[in-house]
Amino acid sequence: MAQKKVTVKKARKATGKSKAVAPKAMKPRKIGVQLKELLVETKKPIPSTGGKYFYYFGGGKAEGSGTMKDILGGKGAGLAEMINLGIPVPPGFTISTEVCRIYYDNKLSLPKSFDREMKLVVERLEKAIGAGFGDAKNPLLVSVRSGAKFSMPGMMDTILNLGLNEETLKGIIAKTDNPRFAYDNYRRFVSMFGNVVLGIDKDQFEEIITKKKKQRSIKHDASLSIDDLKDIVKQFQKLIASKSGEPFPTDPWVQLQMARDAVFRSWNSPRAITYRAASNIPSDLGTAVNVQAMVFGNMGDTSATGVGFTRNPSNGVKEFYGEFLVNAQGEDVVAGVRTPQPITELGKAMPEAYKQLKDITAKLEKHYRDVQDFEFTIQENKLYMLQTRTGKRTAEAAIKIAVDMVQEKLITKDEALMRVQPEQLDQLLHPRIDPHAPVEVIARGLSASPGAASGKVVFHADEAVRLAERSEKTILVRTETNPDDIAGMIAAEGVLTARGGMTSHAAVVARGMGKPCVAGCEDIRVYEARRQFAVGTLVVKDKEIITINGTTGEVMLGEVPTIDPELSGEFGLFMTWADESRSIGIRTNADTPNDAALARKFGAQGIGLCRTEHMFFGKNRLPHVQAMILATTQDERQAALDKLLPFQKADFKGIFEAMEGLPVTIRTLDPPLHEFLPKKEDVLKQIQEAEAEPGKGDEVVRLKKLIDRIDNLHEQNPMLGHRGCRLGISYPEITEMQVKAIFMAAAELIRDGKRVLPEIMVPLVGQRTELVNQKEIITRVAEQMTRKYKVEIPYLVGTMIEIPRAALTADEIAPEADFFSFGTNDLTQMTMGFSRDDAGKFLRLYLDKGILARDPFVTLDQVGVGQLVKMAVEKGRAVKPHLKTGICGEHGGDPESIGFCHRAGLNYVSCSPFRVPIARLAAAQIAIRERLDGKIDKTKKK
Amino acid sequence: MAQKKVTVKKARKATGKSKAVAPKAMKPRKIGVQLKELLVETKKPIPSTGGKYFYYFGGGKAEGSGTMKDILGGKGAGLAEMINLGIPVPPGFTISTEVCRIYYDNKLSLPKSFDREMKLVVERLEKAIGAGFGDAKNPLLVSVRSGAKFSMPGMMDTILNLGLNEETLKGIIAKTDNPRFAYDNYRRFVSMFGNVVLGIDKDQFEEIITKKKKQRSIKHDASLSIDDLKDIVKQFQKLIASKSGEPFPTDPWVQLQMARDAVFRSWNSPRAITYRAASNIPSDLGTAVNVQAMVFGNMGDTSATGVGFTRNPSNGVKEFYGEFLVNAQGEDVVAGVRTPQPITELGKAMPEAYKQLKDITAKLEKHYRDVQDFEFTIQENKLYMLQTRTGKRTAEAAIKIAVDMVQEKLITKDEALMRVQPEQLDQLLHPRIDPHAPVEVIARGLSASPGAASGKVVFHADEAVRLAERSEKTILVRTETNPDDIAGMIAAEGVLTARGGMTSHAAVVARGMGKPCVAGCEDIRVYEARRQFAVGTLVVKDKEIITINGTTGEVMLGEVPTIDPELSGEFGLFMTWADESRSIGIRTNADTPNDAALARKFGAQGIGLCRTEHMFFGKNRLPHVQAMILATTQDERQAALDKLLPFQKADFKGIFEAMEGLPVTIRTLDPPLHEFLPKKEDVLKQIQEAEAEPGKGDEVVRLKKLIDRIDNLHEQNPMLGHRGCRLGISYPEITEMQVKAIFMAAAELIRDGKRVLPEIMVPLVGQRTELVNQKEIITRVAEQMTRKYKVEIPYLVGTMIEIPRAALTADEIAPEADFFSFGTNDLTQMTMGFSRDDAGKFLRLYLDKGILARDPFVTLDQVGVGQLVKMAVEKGRAVKPHLKTGICGEHGGDPESIGFCHRAGLNYVSCSPFRVPIARLAAAQIAIRERLDGKIDKTKKK
Repeated sequence: MAQKKVTVKKARKATGKSKAVAPKAMKPRKIGVQLKELLVETKKPIPSTGGKYFYYFGGGKAEGSGTMKDILGGKGAGLAEMINLGIPVPPGFTISTEVCRIYYDNKLSLPKSFDREMKLVVERLEKAIGAGFGDAKNPLLVSVRSGAKFSMPGMMDTILNLGLNEETLKGIIAKTDNPRFAYDNYRRFVSMFGNVVLGIDKDQFEEIITKKKKQRSIKHDASLSIDDLKDIVKQFQKLIASKSGEPFPTDPWVQLQMARDAVFRSWNSPRAITYRAASNIPSDLGTAVNVQAMVFGNMGDTSATGVGFTRNPSNGVKEFYGEFLVNAQGEDVVAGVRTPQPITELGKAMPEAYKQLKDITAKLEKHYRDVQDFEFTIQENKLYMLQTRTGKRTAEAAIKIAVDMVQEKLITKDEALMRVQPEQLDQLLHPRIDPHAPVEVIARGLSASPGAASGKVVFHADEAVRLAERSEKTILVRTETNPDDIAGMIAAEGVLTARGGMTSHAAVVARGMGKPCVAGCEDIRVYEARRQFAVGTLVVKDKEIITINGTTGEVMLGEVPTIDPELSGEFGLFMTWADESRSIGIRTNADTPNDAALARKFGAQGIGLCRTEHMFFGKNRLPHVQAMILATTQDERQAALDKLLPFQKADFKGIFEAMEGLPVTIRTLDPPLHEFLPKKEDVLKQIQEAEAEPGKGDEVVRLKKLIDRIDNLHEQNPMLGHRGCRLGISYPEITEMQVKAIFMAAAELIRDGKRVLPEIMVPLVGQRTELVNQKEIITRVAEQMTRKYKVEIPYLVGTMIEIPRAALTADEIAPEADFFSFGTNDLTQMTMGFSRDDAGKFLRLYLDKGILARDPFVTLDQVGVGQLVKMAVEKGRAVKPHLKTGICGEHGGDPESIGFCHRAGLNYVSCSPFRVPIARLAAAQIAIRERLDGKIDKTKKK
Repeated sequence: MAQKKVTVKKARKATGKSKAVAPKAMKPRKIGVQLKELLVETKKPIPSTGGKYFYYFGGGKAEGSGTMKDILGGKGAGLAEMINLGIPVPPGFTISTEVCRIYYDNKLSLPKSFDREMKLVVERLEKAIGAGFGDAKNPLLVSVRSGAKFSMPGMMDTILNLGLNEETLKGIIAKTDNPRFAYDNYRRFVSMFGNVVLGIDKDQFEEIITKKKKQRSIKHDASLSIDDLKDIVKQFQKLIASKSGEPFPTDPWVQLQMARDAVFRSWNSPRAITYRAASNIPSDLGTAVNVQAMVFGNMGDTSATGVGFTRNPSNGVKEFYGEFLVNAQGEDVVAGVRTPQPITELGKAMPEAYKQLKDITAKLEKHYRDVQDFEFTIQENKLYMLQTRTGKRTAEAAIKIAVDMVQEKLITKDEALMRVQPEQLDQLLHPRIDPHAPVEVIARGLSASPGAASGKVVFHADEAVRLAERSEKTILVRTETNPDDIAGMIAAEGVLTARGGMTSHAAVVARGMGKPCVAGCEDIRVYEARRQFAVGTLVVKDKEIITINGTTGEVMLGEVPTIDPELSGEFGLFMTWADESRSIGIRTNADTPNDAALARKFGAQGIGLCRTEHMFFGKNRLPHVQAMILATTQDERQAALDKLLPFQKADFKGIFEAMEGLPVTIRTLDPPLHEFLPKKEDVLKQIQEAEAEPGKGDEVVRLKKLIDRIDNLHEQNPMLGHRGCRLGISYPEITEMQVKAIFMAAAELIRDGKRVLPEIMVPLVGQRTELVNQKEIITRVAEQMTRKYKVEIPYLVGTMIEIPRAALTADEIAPEADFFSFGTNDLTQMTMGFSRDDAGKFLRLYLDKGILARDPFVTLDQVGVGQLVKMAVEKGRAVKPHLKTGICGEHGGDPESIGFCHRAGLNYVSCSPFRVPIARLAAAQIAIRERLDGKIDKTKKK
């Protein structure tokens, strides 16, 4: 046999598909399901097979084919396809997915007629092999494997050597003249059956072996004698009898029935159910069962087993890639006894089989027009293919392979674009650990924000800031982060936390900043006060250097070399193709010239959301902002605003320059004013301190006034409170200052010959009259500045659509607006009645109970919130046909939501800089899919 | 002349239309505008008069008529109508409203052609009177008055005796042989012109008179000599010249032009603008100007002036009602020199004129088919009618008159129903001050919640509770109330506060309880610590008895007798008619058997919202509720719930009994759990105290756990947090307990032969799956209880529609729901993005700036929120045609919103008990209006 779990695992790991690219949201992504498959396949109804339940394959012909995944599952269809292509595959049969459905409909049992029919197909297999199932002299052994339409974790593992019992064992011994081999297979089968079919813990079998080895004072399984193995099998069978209450089934037919039914039951294992729910795989598909004659890679030096890829799945290079072991089974590798050899060595060991393997796999790649991940066994110089499937790959490999295959004319550009998952691109946008560098991984956590970084360990935010001022690189290590750590997170190269999940503060903020973060690293214990953290007995102290890899969740000692992202070359070419295909524009959410420049490098076509309040938080601005809030007269307020004006002007100038020639959407002040004031508890503490000190009377008075204002600004539900344009209407001078800063910045640049396209956006509009009010200020200031600077300033005035009422009355608002930008974060909050800050309390439960299918803050709720978006676009365009529309909520970076935006006819989506490439590709894919659907529809019409 | 301002004021006051019935919301209601008028009239476009601007009347014929209010204004149309009916009216002419619009379009001036045309029509008047305008020998004097389509405070007052100057004065003296009379009129004219046209403060004229009287050591104006009056006129003219910078205009033509233009300008006086905005009167209507020949009621004992009503405007009794003064002008009454006589006395003084007046006013009432409020003058035994208009009346009178007129076959039931303003009914549902009782009013505040009550003054809520336990009646007096005072407000008979408006805590809570409240009574200063309040120098101490009248806002010393509301008799009959006319059902929001019984007495047809959480706040329940919240295991939680069950069962039993045979909609737990826990500050204080005391270690531990839970339950935006069905899904055992209590209560009553119709309502549903989840519990418990009690329990399961998404996906939700109940409070909050608790910070500004036309928490926002309601009804009924729908937000008691609900096809509205009669009448009016509109449409089609 030939399953090399470790090798396969390694290959998979190379794709970064482990914990590393775990979901950004609370749910696993569609790992392992090819996008295209999902797009096209999930739509089909399950076909009826008209009473045919068993699909035989062997002798160069299969009853099924590669297109019958619905009925045969992925593995069964692959086997059938290979047989039909004339590829040597051990014969066998597939029990269709329909049988699984019948099994469930029939209360977890099958009508007797199925067993009779199965007997007939097994007889056919016996004839083909020339051996009898349960025949003591010449026994047929089989493998039993699950195989659903989509590969799925949690489904039943393989059972090998099924058919063995005390009688058939003798036949194997006689046939192979190798009793040790026979007994070894036997004990493996019994434990596998006990574990997989009867649900007995693996460890309990392992314990028996360990005891035996101790007893016999030997180290390796291979040193066990035949008698040892015999005894082990007996003990296994005793264990099974005591645990399951039934003796170990010796009748091969009973073994087969039980294994088959176990496969069916595994379809509804909790892990499989969770996975299906998260991946939108219908739960009524059912799984197929593959029963195949055994072949053995461990029959001596002319036998071998291996696994490989038709191209390198790590970097995409077109090379024959894989590993094999002579005279071996997968389990040997698991035990760590021998190291597999590179597959090229197979050419020397078994040149003929190697050549055949190369030809077959090349044929398969050409046939499937994609990289194949294959498994094979060579039994006494004869090659058998056991599996072929689309090979998983890293983002880097995915791009290279896609581009290469287009250049090889194997696939079209459209196909190339459809083969890379947009989310994967994130891996390519950050510095990576040099794959050739030796690393010492000391701990693993969640891959909370991709990229790699090295730096001195610091345990406090202000320490990170202090070191940054000396240009020293740091990694901020904390049990958890909170908003007070923001400055430290900005200053540090990366963040490591011991607690918190993918949506913890550290994770969310780091992703927003595009900084590497390993979160929830429960291997480490952080002692902030002592300035050290521990992993087991290892203690890492203040200022020691570590490296974190946010893409994999690994923490390493010392500085590990990293490679900067390569945005040109194949990546660049690939993204050009994406841009050619897509029709929706991609902008970015950026509040600083740096972010703007970065996003532009990533392909952003403008800024869709520039949050002016972020500029208010700067150390040299906040005092003026607070002075403005605490002002008791309009004059005082104006004085504070006058001090803020130059800062805002400089901010906008920087951003306009970074985005020269592209539109920049600037939102006027949005958050409630209390966000700019210190926390009440902190001020109360200051008052206590000041009161204790003599001569601080004035300070106490000042602080008490501050408390009054904090109380006065306190709101029960700030989300629905005095914010957005409500502020600009209450304090028109704030809007006026901001707009003045925008137009002054624009005018000065235009005077210098630059192209500047400001789009001023009024937030939180729910009534037409609100926009009219703010627009009056904007146009008035625009006229003033045009006169003052004597230049034409092209500008637009638009509004956020983030209050349900705005969407409902879009036809009233549109005449006043040059554009609508959907703030889907707030629109989701209000339409669904979820406070994003609080929903954590029940959202997890809602997802678990299936009350919600998705986290609506990650993927737009198309039915509810989306309905309002569509309504607003339709109503708006009904009165203003060329109304510009876009989305600037975080959904703008979510591929599925981008698809919705495309269909809703939006002009652009706007997302954080690091999601821009993802959005570009997602937008291309949705456009391609629409073209394909269109073609299908056209064909149908004909 | 004949305007008796005081008498008119008195009559108006009797209608309770002063501060007393001031708006429930922040805006004044449509005071003085007849509903019917508004309903029918405001819809018409303003007609063009085709170039005719002056409408002459006199000599038994008028160029206009009573139907031409658009063009002639209300007063002008009334005068024309009287002339056409052959009623003696001094001749004159009306300048049409169109001239006002031209005046504004023409930048506050009129083309010269208008003056030419006016001259022609004045000439016609001169001929009719046989006198010349400005003629020194035989001068024509006129009155000038404003008259818009709808009467409106803030418009220009009357100017009398226009045309007087030094020359014409001589003519008057010669004609009347009464120089004192002439000079008195002259000084009145000059001051009136100075005040009304030129805007000089009245007091400045008054000061000159006062000085003169002092100088001459006389008391009454009447004692002023002719020389005194001459001198006064001179001083007046000097004052005018110095203030206006121009000499007093002596040319009667200039006087007339200036007076006319002043009328036009008064259309846009700030008060008029505010009133129009609040009353939905279009601002482009403009006002007419009425110019009429003067008649004099002060020409000796054969002259008189008076005012009256065709029926008693206070109680509606059919009697000739009014007052008059012989040889008098209105001003004499203002000066308080003489007391007017009851109008019946006129029969003795001038029997012929009296008979004529009775005949004319009877004719007018019959003609207008409504009570008339008229003004007349008798000049030398000749009767002149100066005005007739619909008489304002109290609620009591409105009902009586409407019922009487139906019985007199003067009007139809429909007309009767349309003539009472629904809001007015509130006056009739509470105890009233006995109108015959002598009262000593010591202060006036806002009429925050209607009704009258007497009791001992208490200054603290617990004092009110303590006295209530001894069955002593109290009035709670506070500067302001807050939620801590609730128990005291329940215990007291009424509430008086010094601060806070119509939507202050005291006002809102008192209205909800149906308890009288005078709020914002700024005349008083409350010293809670000293237990006394002061009004000027008067000090009212603890336990002294006062009476408050929440219907008028008056505060009285001592106990004043009150009259209980009379809900049968004419009121009962009238409400029966309303019920016959309306098609929408009226339910009530009630959480206690008392409220349910009261609402039923007021005509509620069931309960539309019973809030179960209100039952959780009871003293004997709260500890169990808190135990449930603090439970760390499900067993602990269940134990606490088991203790709550009997309470809930008893609650429901009481409510079901009070509503026997009628549907009772019960909402499962809605508010976030933290609302049931004490305030954090309070617990922190307790901890401090416990820590200071020895041996309280356990207590400290317990309290610290409580703090943890409070922190843990804290939410940023509780409105959008863990509440509603989200709680029932997180803690299914809570829903289970509540539903069990409902079905046990129902089953026990059904077993006793009672009819019980529970309708269980799941709050805050946004997803179909949420309702499915909760419905599963409800139906399961229903089955269990049906089996246990062996009775059939008829019940419905429905949902609140209060989250925008629920409305948007109503077609998904409807299949699971027997009914939808629109929670328009929360739906308004989420659709408009307004937190009700916080919106006060900008809502006032929004209303002032005209950004919002109405407070959306008082009157449903039909365009936005209403759109969702309509959508939900349509989508829901598309999949379930007989889906029951209702509204249970506070809008259910707002007449305008009820109209919307009717049009949207809802089955019922639900409102607080005291608003049930209001809702019944409002629903009837909307149905009648719809019928009338239907008839009009049908007529048009023919």
